[in-house]
Formats: sequence, C-alpha cells, structure tokens
Amino acid sequence: MTTSSSQVAEKLVHVPLGERAYDILIGPGLIGRAGGEITSRIKGRKAAIVTDENVAPLYLEALTDALQTDGIEVASLTLPAGEKTKSLDHLAAVCDMALAARIERNDAIIALGGGVIGDLAGFAAGIVRRGVRFVQIPTSLLSQVDSSVGGKTGVNSRHGKNLLGVFHQPDLVLADTDTLNTLSEREFRAGYAEVAKYGLIDKPDFFEWLEKNWKQVFSGGPARAEAIAISCQAKSDVVVEDEFENGRRALLNLGHTFGHALEAATQYDSSRLVHGEGVAIGMALAYRFSARLNLASPDDAERVEAHLKAVGLPTRISDIPGEALPVERLMEAIAQDKKVKSGKLTFILTRGIGQSYVADDVAASEVLTFLELQKAR
Amino acid sequence: MTTSSSQVAEKLVHVPLGERAYDILIGPGLIGRAGGEITSRIKGRKAAIVTDENVAPLYLEALTDALQTDGIEVASLTLPAGEKTKSLDHLAAVCDMALAARIERNDAIIALGGGVIGDLAGFAAGIVRRGVRFVQIPTSLLSQVDSSVGGKTGVNSRHGKNLLGVFHQPDLVLADTDTLNTLSEREFRAGYAEVAKYGLIDKPDFFEWLEKNWKQVFSGGPARAEAIAISCQAKSDVVVEDEFENGRRALLNLGHTFGHALEAATQYDSSRLVHGEGVAIGMALAYRFSARLNLASPDDAERVEAHLKAVGLPTRISDIPGEALPVERLMEAIAQDKKVKSGKLTFILTRGIGQSYVADDVAASEVLTFLELQKAR
Repeated sequence: MTTSSSQVAEKLVHVPLGERAYDILIGPGLIGRAGGEITSRIKGRKAAIVTDENVAPLYLEALTDALQTDGIEVASLTLPAGEKTKSLDHLAAVCDMALAARIERNDAIIALGGGVIGDLAGFAAGIVRRGVRFVQIPTSLLSQVDSSVGGKTGVNSRHGKNLLGVFHQPDLVLADTDTLNTLSEREFRAGYAEVAKYGLIDKPDFFEWLEKNWKQVFSGGPARAEAIAISCQAKSDVVVEDEFENGRRALLNLGHTFGHALEAATQYDSSRLVHGEGVAIGMALAYRFSARLNLASPDDAERVEAHLKAVGLPTRISDIPGEALPVERLMEAIAQDKKVKSGKLTFILTRGIGQSYVADDVAASEVLTFLELQKAR
Repeated sequence: MTTSSSQVAEKLVHVPLGERAYDILIGPGLIGRAGGEITSRIKGRKAAIVTDENVAPLYLEALTDALQTDGIEVASLTLPAGEKTKSLDHLAAVCDMALAARIERNDAIIALGGGVIGDLAGFAAGIVRRGVRFVQIPTSLLSQVDSSVGGKTGVNSRHGKNLLGVFHQPDLVLADTDTLNTLSEREFRAGYAEVAKYGLIDKPDFFEWLEKNWKQVFSGGPARAEAIAISCQAKSDVVVEDEFENGRRALLNLGHTFGHALEAATQYDSSRLVHGEGVAIGMALAYRFSARLNLASPDDAERVEAHLKAVGLPTRISDIPGEALPVERLMEAIAQDKKVKSGKLTFILTRGIGQSYVADDVAASEVLTFLELQKAR
C-alpha cells in the first residue's frame, strides 16, 4: 500500500493477480475523477453504469458527467435496492442494457452501489461477450472493504444465496470515501465488522490500532481511508494466494458460519439483523467457542467482545431484537450452510487475536453444546 | 495424438491447458463406458445430464445406466431441439435442475447432444457455484470436431448470437463415433465442412488425405475416427496458443465471415442453409477472393471447390435454394458481424492450401466488387 502523490489522503492498493492485476484507489473525490482514472487504464470509450434507486439520486449524475467529460459514452440502468435484485431476471436486464449500448470487450460495465449492485454488475461483466471490462465504485463501507476485492460475483437462486456466478476480477476499484458520509450509522457499523475481521484473522497490530483509533475511523478523515486500505490489502493478500477459493481464502469466513446461520434464522429480516451485525456476533461466538475448546484464552474472547460492543455492534445472540432464536434452528442453518461429513464441520477457529485458522474437524455435537450454553448469557 | 491401448479404433487427444488440461476420447462405444471414464477423472459422484428431444430417445437411457453402474447419481433435463434453446430462460432451467440435484463443485454437468446443448450446458457448468465440472458427449460431427473443443460456451440474445457466455473448459470430452450413425447425410456433410477447414487453415497434408479418404470418413470405420482426432488436435493446437481469443484463434473463422453473412441473409432458415453449408460456401469464397487478390493461385481455389463439391457440399451462393440473395444484404450482414474500421474489414485470407492467415486491412469496397462478380457464376 502506498500513498498517491496527487492527494495526501488518497491510498492505492495494487492487487497483483498477473494478467488480472488491478488497482484499488481509496480517498475522497474519486467519482469526480472517474473518467481520467478509467481512460488511463481501459481502451474502450463506452461504459454501462448499473446502480440502484437509493444511490442513483446521490451520485449517478456526478459520475455520468465525470465520464462524459473524458469522452466516455454512457448508458445506465437503475434497479430496485435490496437483496432481491440479485436475480437472474435482473442479470438479464443488465446484459440487455449493456448489449443495447454496444459494449464491446474493451468497454466497461460500472457498478455504482453496494455489494448487491457489485455482485450483479460483475456477473454481467463476466458473461457479456464472454467478458468485458469491469469497474467497481463501491458506495458502502462493507462493499469497499469486502465485496469489491476478490472477483466473486453472483446472484441468488431459490436454492440459496450466491449459487450462480463467475469469478471476474475488476479492472479498477474506486472507493470514494465521500460516499460513506451518506451512510446511516448502522450501515457504517455493519461494514466496520468486516474491517475488524481482518485484524482478527491475522493482523493483531491492526486490531490494536482499531481499538485505539476506531472513533477517528467512524468520524472520517485519514484514519478512515487508512483502515479501508489496510482491509483491502488484507483481503488482497488472501485472494492472491487463493484466487479460486480452494484453501486459505476460507479464512475470510471468520464469524460467517455463525453469522449466516443467524441471518437465515431471522429470515434475512434486516430490521432485526444485517449481514455485518451477524458477522460481529459470529466473530464474538467464534472467539468464545475457541476459548471453550481451550484453543484461545478467555481474555482474548472478552477483548474482541469489548471492542465490538464499544463501537455499538451486537455480540450476543440475545442482542438480536424480537423473539428468541431456538438452538435447533441455528444448527439446522449451520448444517445447510456447510457440508457435514460424518458429524464433522469446517469452522474458522482461533488461537488468539489475529491467529485464526481453518479447522475441518469440529464436532457438530460440540457446536450444539456451545450454543445451548449461550442461552444463559 | 496417440492410440489408446484398450481399443484399436480409439483415439485420444490431450488438450494441454495447464490446470485446465483435459482429454478428448474418440471412438465407438464410449457412452457405454462413460461412468468409468468420468469416475477416473472427476471426484464427485453426482451428474446432471442436459440433452434435447432428438437425442434423449436415442442415448439418454444408455448414458444414465452407464453412469449409475459406476455409482454416479444422475439427474437429467430434456430440452426442445434447435437454436432457440440457447436462451437465458433455458440456462436458468438448467441451473435450477443442477442445483436441485445438489451438484457441487466436484460434480459434473454433462452435455449429451450437439452444439446447442454443449454451449448451453457448458455455460451452466461455468456459473453454477461459480464453476462445476463439465463433460461433453457430442453427438453430431460438427460438435465433435468444433464446439466440444475450446471452452467457448454461450446463449443468444436479441442483439445477436452467442453474445452471453463464459470460457469454461470441459474436464472430459467423449466423442462416441457410434452416435454419428444416426445423423442424416446432410448433417454429416455439414460437419465435414469444419473437418476440411482444419486442412485448409494450416494442414495441407490433411487436406490431401481427405481428398483421397473422404469416402471412408463418410462410411465410418477407422478413417472417420482418424479425421475427427486430427480435427480435434488441430483445434486444440490453436486454442492452446490463444485460449481467450485475442489473436491466432481467429483463424478458426476461415469461411465464417461469408458463412455467417449467408446464414443471416437467409434468416437462419435451416431448410435453405445450415451452418456447415454456409462455412463450405464461405471457404470456397475465401479461396476465390484470395485468388482474385492475387494472394493464392486460381488452381487452389478450384481444388477446394472441387473437393467440397465431391462430398456434396454447396460452394456457390447460387447453390442456396430459394430466392437470390442481394449483394447489399450480404454486405450489411458482414458489416454487422465485423467491426468496420475506416472502411477496412478483418478477414481470413489464404496464400494457398493450408496457408491461411488473418488479414485486418481488407477494403470493404473490394469485398463488394468480389460479391458482385459472384452473381455471374
């Protein structure tokens, strides 16, 4: 990670994936400079923007102007906001719009929005003409630190989430930190859970830095761009080692097995729980579970819980508003999320702060007992 | 290309694409042995077969039995036959069937049929869980020598053919030559045009061999498997050099610019013209056009025409039944197929038998004059 010379507050993370290498720029004012950043990296002079009804009124005009100023011909499609937009029907609409705009292999599809828009637009970029250029302009903290790095794209099926998609790396990511100023406090916090995750996976110094600097991350300014850049670099390091998710990339699922189960058990009702909150509770549970298995110290589990609590994130199953979640329903969701091989589950466990690892022999019965114990807390 | 030890008539072509390397087996009786060939190469024990209404009554039961005998759990979907099946709607149906059958990354989607089924099933294999294993069992000569090698998959859009798809290499191709016995003479001939194409691109000895042995290729027996194997090897050589079609792979389009224009001008009416027939006329035109430009000798153009005629393929625009095709309509179709840059077109031209090359500076006006001249012939 280096600081760009043009602006003090701007960061650049290069993701070195050989022929598929790309840059992530992080800082304020990037939407206004999008045209130049794109034309210096991509040959085509046409772009198809995909966005949603929440983001379009805020940034679509500014982005369109910025692209046109640099001679890029622009088409755009504004879709409903929310997880339901990740469907094959919307994918077909995006592809049709891009083909009608005569997007060729050297032109770009641009995702302007959060993770839903990024996953959908990236999938379209991966299949239109068997692959066109792809630019991500993530407008939520979650998508800036997570879904915009790594090349996973996809839509949901009636059989489950993200079951259809391709690996298609972006050619450029513009993480404009100005867009985070329009996020609600709750959305920002939810994204922060993934920032903290990178510390907890294998960067104890970063976690310690967050414990000291989280207020500056929340209030904006240089610490915010710094935290985003370290997160993107951390994810990039894992993705470069395991682009197609055959091994180490599973570490990125720290907190996600419990988290997904909680999301499923609350029927993805965002008034009760959003993804980042599920991950926060999931990470706290992963540390507590590791402590119970005598892998990590209870002090570390408490330290994780204390920090997540301090920023306002939930850390216990009972923190979820509404009716209590029966343990059986959680176990069912875990079994559906994972392949259970002769009663054994794959989990991300930890030996301490920043010492997480992939364990593929966790007894389902141990998980059940642990979850039963949580009811008393 | 080596001869397998187990059966004299069987050929094996290995496509050396690194991590995506795979084998093409060519010979009789392969459907009956599909289970063993798959289980020795692919870890999963589930398979989802995609086929069409013409092929299912002939081979679906035999394939299902063969797979089950080797312990593979089988699901299948039979779709309408024909080009219209290459749609996003049918893609969604195939994906849904595969997910309902709980196909995981190490399980296989199997294409049992011609090019349409191969392109559709391969696309599904490329996107279900971001990529599952893929086995091709091509049942037409065209798909055995062309679409089953190279990893191009796709469906059509209202904006054009094959505009949506992915590159997804198969893990195994079983070209069972017994299936060719149920093809009509016309279908076999159409596939043969692509066989001859490989000789005309860069294998003059193979073209000479075909001139002598084509009757044995048509009647079946060892010469048929030999011709298919040489064709697969030829396509493999080109694909290995240029997997993602950035250069040399364009040579495979010999005869296709004129051919596609003829198909479009006849509205893809297969009673008038099928793809292989368009390619046959297109190759004859490419040689005649090259002779007119003083690149190749008129003798070579006549030799190509004589051989295609001998096997019963059309070689002139006037060979197409029905109303005459106006030159303007052909030029329009050519312009739509190609990017015209300042009046220049990219064409595959030739300096003689087996001496084809990519020319990117062909004047549209030269093509027009040439096509006008064809009317008199």
